[in-house]
Amino acid sequence: MFYHVQSLINEIVADEPDPSAANALQEGLGGQFGEMRTMMQYLFQSFNFRGDAKPYLDLIQGVGVEEISHVELISKTISTLLDGSPRYQGKKFETPGKGGAESMAMAKEQQNPHHFIVGAQGALPVDAAHNPWNGSWVHDHGNLVLNLMDNLVLEATGRLQKCRIYQMSANKTLRNTVAFLIVRDEAHQAAFGKALESLGVNWSKVLPVPKFDSTQWPEVKRLMDLGIHREQYTFRLDGSDMGAIFSGAAPFNDGTEVVTKTEPDRSFPIPTAPERPEEFAPGLDPELQALADALTEFKEGMAKKADAKKPASKSAKKK
Amino acid sequence: MFYHVQSLINEIVADEPDPSAANALQEGLGGQFGEMRTMMQYLFQSFNFRGDAKPYLDLIQGVGVEEISHVELISKTISTLLDGSPRYQGKKFETPGKGGAESMAMAKEQQNPHHFIVGAQGALPVDAAHNPWNGSWVHDHGNLVLNLMDNLVLEATGRLQKCRIYQMSANKTLRNTVAFLIVRDEAHQAAFGKALESLGVNWSKVLPVPKFDSTQWPEVKRLMDLGIHREQYTFRLDGSDMGAIFSGAAPFNDGTEVVTKTEPDRSFPIPTAPERPEEFAPGLDPELQALADALTEFKEGMAKKADAKKPASKSAKKK
Amino acid sequence: MFYHVQSLINEIVADEPDPSAANALQEGLGGQFGEMRTMMQYLFQSFNFRGDAKPYLDLIQGVGVEEISHVELISKTISTLLDGSPRYQGKKFETPGKGGAESMAMAKEQQNPHHFIVGAQGALPVDAAHNPWNGSWVHDHGNLVLNLMDNLVLEATGRLQKCRIYQMSANKTLRNTVAFLIVRDEAHQAAFGKALESLGVNWSKVLPVPKFDSTQWPEVKRLMDLGIHREQYTFRLDGSDMGAIFSGAAPFNDGTEVVTKTEPDRSFPIPTAPERPEEFAPGLDPELQALADALTEFKEGMAKKADAKKPASKSAKKK
Amino acid sequence: MFYHVQSLINEIVADEPDPSAANALQEGLGGQFGEMRTMMQYLFQSFNFRGDAKPYLDLIQGVGVEEISHVELISKTISTLLDGSPRYQGKKFETPGKGGAESMAMAKEQQNPHHFIVGAQGALPVDAAHNPWNGSWVHDHGNLVLNLMDNLVLEATGRLQKCRIYQMSANKTLRNTVAFLIVRDEAHQAAFGKALESLGVNWSKVLPVPKFDSTQWPEVKRLMDLGIHREQYTFRLDGSDMGAIFSGAAPFNDGTEVVTKTEPDRSFPIPTAPERPEEFAPGLDPELQALADALTEFKEGMAKKADAKKPASKSAKKK
Amino acid sequence: MFYHVQSLINEIVADEPDPSAANALQEGLGGQFGEMRTMMQYLFQSFNFRGDAKPYLDLIQGVGVEEISHVELISKTISTLLDGSPRYQGKKFETPGKGGAESMAMAKEQQNPHHFIVGAQGALPVDAAHNPWNGSWVHDHGNLVLNLMDNLVLEATGRLQKCRIYQMSANKTLRNTVAFLIVRDEAHQAAFGKALESLGVNWSKVLPVPKFDSTQWPEVKRLMDLGIHREQYTFRLDGSDMGAIFSGAAPFNDGTEVVTKTEPDRSFPIPTAPERPEEFAPGLDPELQALADALTEFKEGMAKKADAKKPASKSAKKK
Amino acid sequence: MFYHVQSLINEIVADEPDPSAANALQEGLGGQFGEMRTMMQYLFQSFNFRGDAKPYLDLIQGVGVEEISHVELISKTISTLLDGSPRYQGKKFETPGKGGAESMAMAKEQQNPHHFIVGAQGALPVDAAHNPWNGSWVHDHGNLVLNLMDNLVLEATGRLQKCRIYQMSANKTLRNTVAFLIVRDEAHQAAFGKALESLGVNWSKVLPVPKFDSTQWPEVKRLMDLGIHREQYTFRLDGSDMGAIFSGAAPFNDGTEVVTKTEPDRSFPIPTAPERPEEFAPGLDPELQALADALTEFKEGMAKKADAKKPASKSAKKK
Repeated sequence: MFYHVQSLINEIVADEPDPSAANALQEGLGGQFGEMRTMMQYLFQSFNFRGDAKPYLDLIQGVGVEEISHVELISKTISTLLDGSPRYQGKKFETPGKGGAESMAMAKEQQNPHHFIVGAQGALPVDAAHNPWNGSWVHDHGNLVLNLMDNLVLEATGRLQKCRIYQMSANKTLRNTVAFLIVRDEAHQAAFGKALESLGVNWSKVLPVPKFDSTQWPEVKRLMDLGIHREQYTFRLDGSDMGAIFSGAAPFNDGTEVVTKTEPDRSFPIPTAPERPEEFAPGLDPELQALADALTEFKEGMAKKADAKKPASKSAKKK
Repeated sequence: MFYHVQSLINEIVADEPDPSAANALQEGLGGQFGEMRTMMQYLFQSFNFRGDAKPYLDLIQGVGVEEISHVELISKTISTLLDGSPRYQGKKFETPGKGGAESMAMAKEQQNPHHFIVGAQGALPVDAAHNPWNGSWVHDHGNLVLNLMDNLVLEATGRLQKCRIYQMSANKTLRNTVAFLIVRDEAHQAAFGKALESLGVNWSKVLPVPKFDSTQWPEVKRLMDLGIHREQYTFRLDGSDMGAIFSGAAPFNDGTEVVTKTEPDRSFPIPTAPERPEEFAPGLDPELQALADALTEFKEGMAKKADAKKPASKSAKKK
Repeated sequence: MFYHVQSLINEIVADEPDPSAANALQEGLGGQFGEMRTMMQYLFQSFNFRGDAKPYLDLIQGVGVEEISHVELISKTISTLLDGSPRYQGKKFETPGKGGAESMAMAKEQQNPHHFIVGAQGALPVDAAHNPWNGSWVHDHGNLVLNLMDNLVLEATGRLQKCRIYQMSANKTLRNTVAFLIVRDEAHQAAFGKALESLGVNWSKVLPVPKFDSTQWPEVKRLMDLGIHREQYTFRLDGSDMGAIFSGAAPFNDGTEVVTKTEPDRSFPIPTAPERPEEFAPGLDPELQALADALTEFKEGMAKKADAKKPASKSAKKK
Repeated sequence: MFYHVQSLINEIVADEPDPSAANALQEGLGGQFGEMRTMMQYLFQSFNFRGDAKPYLDLIQGVGVEEISHVELISKTISTLLDGSPRYQGKKFETPGKGGAESMAMAKEQQNPHHFIVGAQGALPVDAAHNPWNGSWVHDHGNLVLNLMDNLVLEATGRLQKCRIYQMSANKTLRNTVAFLIVRDEAHQAAFGKALESLGVNWSKVLPVPKFDSTQWPEVKRLMDLGIHREQYTFRLDGSDMGAIFSGAAPFNDGTEVVTKTEPDRSFPIPTAPERPEEFAPGLDPELQALADALTEFKEGMAKKADAKKPASKSAKKK
Repeated sequence: MFYHVQSLINEIVADEPDPSAANALQEGLGGQFGEMRTMMQYLFQSFNFRGDAKPYLDLIQGVGVEEISHVELISKTISTLLDGSPRYQGKKFETPGKGGAESMAMAKEQQNPHHFIVGAQGALPVDAAHNPWNGSWVHDHGNLVLNLMDNLVLEATGRLQKCRIYQMSANKTLRNTVAFLIVRDEAHQAAFGKALESLGVNWSKVLPVPKFDSTQWPEVKRLMDLGIHREQYTFRLDGSDMGAIFSGAAPFNDGTEVVTKTEPDRSFPIPTAPERPEEFAPGLDPELQALADALTEFKEGMAKKADAKKPASKSAKKK
Repeated sequence: MFYHVQSLINEIVADEPDPSAANALQEGLGGQFGEMRTMMQYLFQSFNFRGDAKPYLDLIQGVGVEEISHVELISKTISTLLDGSPRYQGKKFETPGKGGAESMAMAKEQQNPHHFIVGAQGALPVDAAHNPWNGSWVHDHGNLVLNLMDNLVLEATGRLQKCRIYQMSANKTLRNTVAFLIVRDEAHQAAFGKALESLGVNWSKVLPVPKFDSTQWPEVKRLMDLGIHREQYTFRLDGSDMGAIFSGAAPFNDGTEVVTKTEPDRSFPIPTAPERPEEFAPGLDPELQALADALTEFKEGMAKKADAKKPASKSAKKK
């Protein structure tokens, strides 16, 4: 069973909107080697897991749970990059296109017009070339060694593609998120590299892929200085054996150490996205808003009752 | 951010393996109106949410988080239905196919041979006709009213298809899971029906879809007697305003009441799946097992340290 | 603009249900060379047509309009082949699966379980291998000669595949429809062969594809005796120049003549399909039926008014 | 059976070519919520219809037949927007690229290069992100209530997306067609909203989606002043019971009335598209043209005979 | 540039037809980890290769060229398994279905009806679940280390899936081909394992995947006794540096040695497939056959001239 | 079995990089009518060939083998057009993006961002609208006449699309390759046109498609002056009967003659592609390079041994 807190695993940094940066970042979300794939691949491998090698299960599933939070982070980043982009392009819009004003003229020239026609300046489950995410990309071979190797290739490709995307835009909103994912994909290479090391493989100097000094990028350096590239989180409310594998020397033969934690040291607030009238989003027009407002008053009374009803049993479960 | 406990939201009931039942159930997992779709649709709608109508956000996202647990439940059910099916068909297998024995002869005649060739008798992210899950099925129109209507159609279709699947097999493993999903899809129709009711719609007698007395099915009746068709869960560790919408009379005009809880009253253990040598799953052959065993000993020492490191901060966050 | 009459272009002959025959026939509906493809290909070629070679436009578009009626015919044939198939398999069903009865047990073993889970024993826009119909199959090269050649290959493939399907089942429902399509695909080969002949090509003896004496099949022979393999219809309410091409000697160098008509000499009633409670189809349960019945009474009064309102202008347009 | 007249359901207004506007409009033709989907969805629901609720069948099928004319209209609009766009971009072309002139230089930079490589500046069965139309988008749940709800969501999404496209371009060719579709999608929301109202639902103020005053757009206002947003057409040559549902108060609780007609009051000529030598379209080079010219003469004699042969029986059928 | 000889890389062994075995084998041809994927992946990596690490290029490309011959072998094996299967099922067929005989009745029940409707009892570019082969499966990351890791995972998956298929059928036609591919996939794991070893990795005992004693299968043992699992071929007419990597100790730490050869020691004749009248294959009916016969006579005279024209230059190129 | 030489079938001419030209050319590689399709279609038709009409088999297969070399040529052309395009756009890059420099800024605006994110400025198996190549495009109808007609349509479409692409760019790299393919597609139209002519068809003046004087394009004229549009190659090391069909008058009724050769008169060197550090391609960082250098020394010794081992048997086979 899964639980949620309304927080992000990394901060969204503000900058100007940039629809083509948003489109490039879609590769990291809905691409063949993006976060939706990693999330689904590790969850399927966990749900179908055979045998009693529990530390391996806990490692794969723990990374999988983290990936759901990556999907949340990268979706929010794409939304933020798209948000208000018609206005940003120097064309003022009215609500909606009053008198026939051409308020979204720029939208039809963008990389992915679906960001403006199908979604309301929000993330889509597609890649940077507009292909919808596809279930055939999820690999669960049902063989532990092969799954670990496949996962390692997946994380290496993830880091490679994000390093390329980093260089495609100086936008701070994009870079701050991409830097975090570069660092985490290195940690995940360490996770699967370490698991294969436990079965005898010595990686010499081939990991992490790609080989280069990523501290030259300041957003990446800041996170590595905090040691985030050597941490792994269980995200488990009932304990985990992940640490049996993910501890000790990193599998990169570089003298660093890896460490397992329950969750990241910090989490970050989720910014509220403004309404976009030119997209008819959300579309609670005045009449419906009045009904919603009545509900809000009602809610305040309700919320107290709901709080009162919340069971104390969950905290017990976690002890 | 997301968290996990190693428990199921409903019980897996044991029965004989049945690969064609497993295949039918794939529709409920990876089909156009299956649990992967509902999970992704509600999460994308939440991540892209605009405006400050928080109770609506909390309702959509809460259902979305529950759907991850449904994906977990239905995947495990499919694995269980597939597990050992070559043996079940009356053909004994050796490890693996010793001397060329034809240990998986029946597998090539099954509805989806991928269950035996690509996976190791495990669930796949595909539908009952073998189409991979597709991102284009995720609808986030960016307009709240339309999203609620789309979600209601989705839940109605989910319940309709599961009612059809129920009648396709008497296998208890299948039926117990399907019955739970029928009941929950009714609860989710109540959730989105209630949200539209808050904006003025009166559903008269058209909901839930399909209209029939589902208590005639004993597995369904048992859950309805427990009231599970009128509950909704927030799965939130930091509070939720879902209850502002999901409380009071059900939108079915049938005199029942709906109620919001933090989580279900019960959760269930996840059975361990045995190794399947004919699938080379997991494939920790004796040499690699020896390495894993060495790790197990090491693990015991490690686990204590890991426990010691676990922060007390999470329980604080939830208060 | 398009108009409709509630009649079929060929008769649906009754026989036992046969889901695997229905599945084979899906190739003729939603396959790469099926009726949905021909319909869309010719309509797109017509809508995008360039230049003033009106007889060629009228020929292509006329065949395209006929194909919509083929989609109607083959869909109804598939529905008829599926209708009641659980009952047919010797398992009696109650309404719906009363007391948990396994009323659709056979459905999970069928070629395409979607016929029972996604549809309610009805036709789907997919092929015999369950691939959804795909827009990339529609070819409009924007070059008249090439379009005519492509259309000829399409009709030849259509006839070839239907000749194979004919031999796969003795079911009369299937065969009567397939025989009609074999005959019409021969007529359409004549249409495009004739158009290329008008540009100088001599086909010698290579057409129609495949070469064999199709009168050995009695259902085909009956239609050929009526001359239906040498007719083409304009389906135009405002006149057509199709006959400028489609008249005179057939392009098969076999001594026969082709003829253009406005529409077929006969049309056939569309049988009403019964409700299927085990599919929750249509699902007008007693409560909703009462509302519908009230409407029916109301309808009778309305129908008279509606008749009165019908303009006489259409017949004028056609004169 | 289906019939055709060589007329459009709305006027094509002339303006400059605009390939990126053409690409945006592809969403309305070949997108998941475009006219090909609505056409196919309603036709499949009609062909598979169960039971004797004839007014509902006639309503769904009538809208379906209209959608074929929408596919015709939007295809022609896209062709018109693309037509001559290389020339428009300020690069004069010779026939074809004489001496190696780069006559289609701009084409390689366009949103969808297929408009110039695969088609000859014509419409394609794809969406604005270049995904081919897909049969899985057609929903026929086989349950009347659910189909009506799904159809309502489909029309609401259609109107929402077209309202967004309207704001993306000031091109008159695009806007005149889009305005017509916005108005018709409102009428179709009325159709399915009314059908659900007949089963007891009260929509209060949530319809039509999106909620806003669309008369602020002059092209839309003109059509609404004519009442086209409250009309529905049967397009039936043999009578229809659509009017039993589609009459009386609109389901929007706004005091307006809806009305059923046999066909629209006006229809419009289809402009002839010029040849495009740089596309080798149509490619009747002088040698083949000579053959075609010979045919034209022949045609004139033939046409008279064809007229003479046209049966008077069709008008009888319609009475 | 590529050349061909009309020989097979392994022998086709005769046995009874078996359409479901043929379908299972499609996974090895057109599946995500099948021979079409390996062929295309290695060729694309070769064509896009950067830098001067020629031995790595020659290794990847050499394996890629071999894979074309694997596609040839496995296609022919599937054709052979399908050939005559209607007759085999105990139903005699006439030519074609004389008098309406149901000569392909069994075909509509088979795993993939396309084998009989779309193809003429021949191989298709699809997988065992009927998904068409897809270009997105081809991975060329443009990074040598990552490509080698990806290729290793691909070969490991190929061997795993073929080991599963081996156990699904005792048919000798299937097993002889599958055994060859199991052995070659082990050789290819050696190739990419060896390349990574040259960059420092030590594989300990994890390779080959899956770990088990494949000599228990007699068809596999025969080939391993010949050493075919430790050979690699350049298939180059102009020399290759593959041997710089592929020589010395196998990367499996098992004491064996690998060796590079120009081509396999033996090649095998390609059996002629009979005509299948019930499929209208090939369809040279008597009239066309007469024309073909005339051509055959003509050919004999021509062939001598063609031989005379063959340049001696190729053999020079290879020296 | 297949063999390779490290040479190209036509020359790559140098010019500036041009990513949008590269994208247009993808249609010729991975499009529905591109070289991957022709290659696979003819190879599948050959592998599944039925009957003893050997000249037809040798013709189809010979063209198929040539197409592999076309895939090689066009892939290399696309790589060349992409290579260094970020630098070309006036933005200097460091290695990789030092200090966070935005070295690939232009990449996010390109037609297909996958060229820079997924690949490393290399060709992809996709079309110009980013659709992955799809196996359903391969047509093997199993009927010789129909296959020949389908192949003719395929080659005609190939030539048509390449003529359109020629006009889209003045880039010499693109034009030189496209001109070669235009000429070869004319030769292949001759091949299949000739084969149908042998069965009686007279093409009059409709071929080749499109009809126009392609000598107006200088790159095309140069190749036609060499007669390359009337040659066909067997690419067979063991003899071929292709010449029985492909000899004598061209099927275009234009007075020219066609001729069969073993291979083209000339072949061309494959240029080495430079490393691209901003793409982490190939990524042999200094540490790994040191290992590779050690291998190079080792290689020199090995190469001599490998040469010594090369069997003389191949030349014998070809005699």
